[in-house]
Amino acid sequence: MTVSLSAELWPDVQPDAARRLMLAAVESFAARGYHATTTRDIAAAAGMSPAALYVHFPSKAALLFAISRNGHEQTLTLVESVAGGDEPPRERMRKIIEDFVAWHARRHTVARVVQYELQALPEQEYAVVADLRRRIENLVREVIAEGVEKGEFTVGDLRTAARAVLSLGVDVARWYSDRIGKTPKALGREYGELVLRMLGAGI
Amino acid sequence: MTVSLSAELWPDVQPDAARRLMLAAVESFAARGYHATTTRDIAAAAGMSPAALYVHFPSKAALLFAISRNGHEQTLTLVESVAGGDEPPRERMRKIIEDFVAWHARRHTVARVVQYELQALPEQEYAVVADLRRRIENLVREVIAEGVEKGEFTVGDLRTAARAVLSLGVDVARWYSDRIGKTPKALGREYGELVLRMLGAGI
Repeated sequence: MTVSLSAELWPDVQPDAARRLMLAAVESFAARGYHATTTRDIAAAAGMSPAALYVHFPSKAALLFAISRNGHEQTLTLVESVAGGDEPPRERMRKIIEDFVAWHARRHTVARVVQYELQALPEQEYAVVADLRRRIENLVREVIAEGVEKGEFTVGDLRTAARAVLSLGVDVARWYSDRIGKTPKALGREYGELVLRMLGAGI
Repeated sequence: MTVSLSAELWPDVQPDAARRLMLAAVESFAARGYHATTTRDIAAAAGMSPAALYVHFPSKAALLFAISRNGHEQTLTLVESVAGGDEPPRERMRKIIEDFVAWHARRHTVARVVQYELQALPEQEYAVVADLRRRIENLVREVIAEGVEKGEFTVGDLRTAARAVLSLGVDVARWYSDRIGKTPKALGREYGELVLRMLGAGI
């Protein structure tokens, strides 16, 4: 069960032991916060020895970095795969928001670590993640700018608009739970409509 | 300096030593997370002895509760003071968002504790805060509903709309910093416009 969940969350991470440690880290950070979690806690949660953990990750910070970078890479990929397409900007924006919101809802526990523990990253690792974040924000801003140019969107400040759009998606990770009775996909669709309106798409 | 800051953050908390402890707690939680912070850390940060801390707060959880409840009461007050007014719903909504966003920007360090450490609250204390949250969300939903009734707003799902509006404001606490070169008030105004559009107010 845990094995298949971790493979689903991080399909591009190998070997499986590394994924299991990442999942155990996410669960431990969620339960008691990053700072209060020890590598011993994480190894125990993964059913491994501390020594086995160090084979894959030299430190707790390295685990946080792996989770954070991978999460940002996944969201960058989903934005990238749509942002440069041929569809009208409003259709691209709708798709980006649907996917971005669904990702943060579906993976809300992982996403909380990805989005809320940035300050715990060491400086160099933080720089890598900050670059991924900039790329995501730039892509979203470019789609909005293109929409404005083509008369599809009307916004006051491009930077504020891009930030608000992403902010709305990120915050889903904070409040989403399976109990709200709405699937990640359904929520993504509703948010797609809300965001298009926010950008003055006049729907 | 610290004394005046804590008085500004919690004008209705007495005596000053309690406010100083709340401020020291916010700073300690921000630096290393709630779980990794000890009452000893907080007392030291406030320049007090652990015994002096216990005079005002019986536990770390009591401090978290004081910060969380007070923050929720402050935001409830600002929503309440506008929600039931005589102005058209769109003007009330604009004012609510301007104030709510400015509050989360101006007090972003306190607001992060208020918004992101709910799970660490003991059950009874959580219930008190959850009730305040429900009241805030209900007021916002009622203003939206009134706007829909009067033909000022058009929304798909009332609950999703209210949640998205508040979510946008809450997330400001996560990313806002003084370095973005935009005052809390200016950001509030921009967000007021974005939210009215999101609600289909056709501005």
